[in-house]
Amino acid sequence: MVNSRLDQIKSANDIRKIPPSDYGLLAEEIRSCLVDVISHTGGHLASNLGIVEVTMALHLCMTFPEDKLIFDVGHQSYVHKILTGRRREFRKIRTFGGISGFPKRSESGSDAFGTGHSSTALSAALGFAAARERLGQDYKIAAVVGDGAATGGMFYEAFNHLTYLKGNLVLVFNDNGMSISPNVGALAEWLNSSGRKHSPAAFFDGINMEYRGPLDGHDLGVLVPAVKDAFGCGRPVLLHVLTEKGKGYEPAEKNPVWYHGLAGTAREESYTNVFGKTMTDIARKDDRVTAVCAAMEHGTGLCGFREAYPQRFYDVGIAEAHAVTFAAGLAAGGLRPYVAVYSSFLQRAFDQIIHDVCLQRLPVVFCLDRAGIVGEDGETHQGIFDLSYLTLMPGMTVAAPGDQDELREFLFWSLEFPAPLAIRYPKRRAYTCPVTQRDAIRLGKSEVLMPGRDIALLAVGSMVEDAVRLHDILAQKGYWVSVVNVRFIKPFDRELLFKLTCGHRLFVTMEENVWNGGYGQQVSAYLAGSGSNVHVLNIGIGDMFVKHGTIDGIKRELGLDKDTLAERIIKEYRCCEK
Amino acid sequence: MVNSRLDQIKSANDIRKIPPSDYGLLAEEIRSCLVDVISHTGGHLASNLGIVEVTMALHLCMTFPEDKLIFDVGHQSYVHKILTGRRREFRKIRTFGGISGFPKRSESGSDAFGTGHSSTALSAALGFAAARERLGQDYKIAAVVGDGAATGGMFYEAFNHLTYLKGNLVLVFNDNGMSISPNVGALAEWLNSSGRKHSPAAFFDGINMEYRGPLDGHDLGVLVPAVKDAFGCGRPVLLHVLTEKGKGYEPAEKNPVWYHGLAGTAREESYTNVFGKTMTDIARKDDRVTAVCAAMEHGTGLCGFREAYPQRFYDVGIAEAHAVTFAAGLAAGGLRPYVAVYSSFLQRAFDQIIHDVCLQRLPVVFCLDRAGIVGEDGETHQGIFDLSYLTLMPGMTVAAPGDQDELREFLFWSLEFPAPLAIRYPKRRAYTCPVTQRDAIRLGKSEVLMPGRDIALLAVGSMVEDAVRLHDILAQKGYWVSVVNVRFIKPFDRELLFKLTCGHRLFVTMEENVWNGGYGQQVSAYLAGSGSNVHVLNIGIGDMFVKHGTIDGIKRELGLDKDTLAERIIKEYRCCEK
Repeated sequence: MVNSRLDQIKSANDIRKIPPSDYGLLAEEIRSCLVDVISHTGGHLASNLGIVEVTMALHLCMTFPEDKLIFDVGHQSYVHKILTGRRREFRKIRTFGGISGFPKRSESGSDAFGTGHSSTALSAALGFAAARERLGQDYKIAAVVGDGAATGGMFYEAFNHLTYLKGNLVLVFNDNGMSISPNVGALAEWLNSSGRKHSPAAFFDGINMEYRGPLDGHDLGVLVPAVKDAFGCGRPVLLHVLTEKGKGYEPAEKNPVWYHGLAGTAREESYTNVFGKTMTDIARKDDRVTAVCAAMEHGTGLCGFREAYPQRFYDVGIAEAHAVTFAAGLAAGGLRPYVAVYSSFLQRAFDQIIHDVCLQRLPVVFCLDRAGIVGEDGETHQGIFDLSYLTLMPGMTVAAPGDQDELREFLFWSLEFPAPLAIRYPKRRAYTCPVTQRDAIRLGKSEVLMPGRDIALLAVGSMVEDAVRLHDILAQKGYWVSVVNVRFIKPFDRELLFKLTCGHRLFVTMEENVWNGGYGQQVSAYLAGSGSNVHVLNIGIGDMFVKHGTIDGIKRELGLDKDTLAERIIKEYRCCEK
Repeated sequence: MVNSRLDQIKSANDIRKIPPSDYGLLAEEIRSCLVDVISHTGGHLASNLGIVEVTMALHLCMTFPEDKLIFDVGHQSYVHKILTGRRREFRKIRTFGGISGFPKRSESGSDAFGTGHSSTALSAALGFAAARERLGQDYKIAAVVGDGAATGGMFYEAFNHLTYLKGNLVLVFNDNGMSISPNVGALAEWLNSSGRKHSPAAFFDGINMEYRGPLDGHDLGVLVPAVKDAFGCGRPVLLHVLTEKGKGYEPAEKNPVWYHGLAGTAREESYTNVFGKTMTDIARKDDRVTAVCAAMEHGTGLCGFREAYPQRFYDVGIAEAHAVTFAAGLAAGGLRPYVAVYSSFLQRAFDQIIHDVCLQRLPVVFCLDRAGIVGEDGETHQGIFDLSYLTLMPGMTVAAPGDQDELREFLFWSLEFPAPLAIRYPKRRAYTCPVTQRDAIRLGKSEVLMPGRDIALLAVGSMVEDAVRLHDILAQKGYWVSVVNVRFIKPFDRELLFKLTCGHRLFVTMEENVWNGGYGQQVSAYLAGSGSNVHVLNIGIGDMFVKHGTIDGIKRELGLDKDTLAERIIKEYRCCEK
């Protein structure tokens, strides 16, 4: 296909070279480019198809990198990337070594502020506005917010702070009538289409903001003058644009939830599916079971649960802090709430877990999907902190099932557990451990999957699969290796570690988590206190953020692939022998 | 003074025995009781004086412990405690072994849900409401929210979720026209007095809530029927009550900010003061310096800064998540933001520190006041997690000055620091270390304050004072002890530790932080990896929440007083000798 207009856009601001009569054709070319690439690489197709004209209009009125354009959540920044000199790199979006699926300051000067989690853009925009005022500068600032961010509390905190703002800032409210799941809640209605019956202008005027809209978000003839006018206003402007998610691509228009995040490869039975099915099973067994999620019904695998038990399912919107305290209330009221949330998103509710759940020892079960390396979504989405941030909380029990059967078993086991509990599992094809004789779950007890000697592999969750493979590789090289399924990171199994210090010279801890505060550090510290001479090798993630790529590619890059691991372990073991 | 009415209230629900004609006298007796006790024990006097009649009205319409009354933040629950059989214990409120200054499920069945941090009550109330519906129960639920909680994002997340709610729930919005500092922001206006010009009824009706008010919050003749009616409504009701903070006690009425939290003892020069003064000094030196706080201008010592540099000071309300991302925006815009916040409240912005500051390596300085044991505010306010939750973040530098001069020096040093930095200091009289020859600050370097041998005390922040004292005690007993001022918890000084392994048999790590993920665990893990034979004793806080009391009293209870520490260290050292 000839992209005669898109071909002219080689760097930021080149869109101005396109004659207005060609805007429609340019939009078409951008859409083709999005569909071509994302159907191969995976990514957020529908959101980006919906925002083509809005992004073009902003680009026609802004100058990069001087002006600051911030995309909330950031998965709708693909068009912005294409228009700022990254069209060639766009073909490798979300792949290892390629550009990120989210805005990154380190990737381009035109990405003013990195995003990934929801509802941060207005706060960051206010920061830029205050700095601009303080430093006597006069660049333009725009934040594009939509897709459910209106349910996140931070968005309102920033709203509350708007009265302070002197000067202009444009908040583009991208209203496509649905969040990742259809929008829930009340205040969202005020901002969303249905809210128009309440006169948003009066509401926003009360908070130092001029309301303009609603505008057809696909009509550049309307959008460009409106954006230009908005930047000319002396105070903050809310530009309410109505867009259609998936616009211009029939399959995505018809099923925008499915096309919201498009996986590049075929789907297999995943831990997410196992979790979802088991939730329905335990709900059947125990009437008290309720499920809470934060705008991630599909992502956390709870669609079946909602269908089977609609009265026992709560999607609170992108509002993790509320989700956790709401669950604490459910538990205090006598139910058994299960909060299903991605590991990196639960970071949003760190204090609520401590303050509302742990301090009161309420039996809330946190089901952390996407724990460990998540792949293509990259730095903001890696679930590599949860073992650290959960174990530091007094009274929290932290578990990581080693395979899919154990995930099921943990969920059944949790029904009678009287205190806060976190169960973490990865974004991965569900593994079945080949060992047939398995121990029942006992609080704080690890399981010896394969007894050996010399070297003990202490594997957390997803690393059990790697450890079983390493066992075979190392066995072929003449090493007799024990494989331990750690199961409980907190409380951790001191008794077993003590036993293993006899007969083993090297402990290898294996986890998809940062080293600081993780399982490996606990084991190392235990050994320092025990006076034992066992050496320890900590396999995990260093003090770094982990970029995007395939999970296997990232693991190779981090030295977590089986061949590198085998080498590292043998080398370390040889040191012990000296 | 004769308390003939209050004397009749021996347990929950006894207020119903009082004839309505005596309500006024009862209110007076309660106020006298509050003033008498709080002027001795310290505590939140003004907030409680303001809510006497509102609490009485709720008690006249509710039955405890069956009904659920949740106080947001919780420092205004004293009247509730007095009316639920804790009048005798009230005399020992906030003292060691006495009742807490906040609601606690563990303290009384009448405390439905513990609070301490802001904006959680409506979320918890919604949880109870959902549980009540699910379990077919019919108790009453009320949440008392006010005092600035309207700026907290969680409150809006819960609001957003209200449309789900079936049945009744009463949200008492206690509008005293000021938060801890006067209310800031926009949406607060809608709810607060000034918002009445916007017709709150229409607004709340749109979100499944019936608005009733504003009511005189000191007139029981108005309040009691209004509360009764509100509970009779088939859907959620917002009861807007206007109260006067400090009501009935002239000094508190005139200066409610001062009387908000009343310290029981005289004030000395504190780390807070040193911080506040130094902020003004560094602002004078560097135009880019800006300060951000979350409704804690007084608490963080920034009043002088605001007076000197009003354009460079931002109080964003009780909105820590926004404060952090706003600061990230300020930094991205070219300023040097200092976020001044209590250690336990910064937990609210855990994800924003990772996602918006660390990931982008923005030079935001976090100034964590109340780090370590805070005393009378107890479990929810102890700053005992920050070393763990900050060190797990990639790219974060974590420092703890050992005395007041070093706090000043760190703040000047931070001006040129190019990346995220946290400086933690305690709620304590400012200490001056007697050692006169001091090292200049160098990134990641600890300071040997007192060179010795055999035993090395590795002291973090406030523990430097304890270590210097222990040095003398141990010296008298014939032990030659090194004292190290750790200064940097991350990156931590491996080089010095390596040097100290020669000539020392025992490392004693000392910190006011939980063990999991803290400095001691890092040192232990380092030693395990180093192959050294040095023993280690970790002094800190176990896997537990720490109750209220005086700081010294709590330290004694935790075995952190100097005599117990000296004993523990000597005992451990004797073990090493074997």
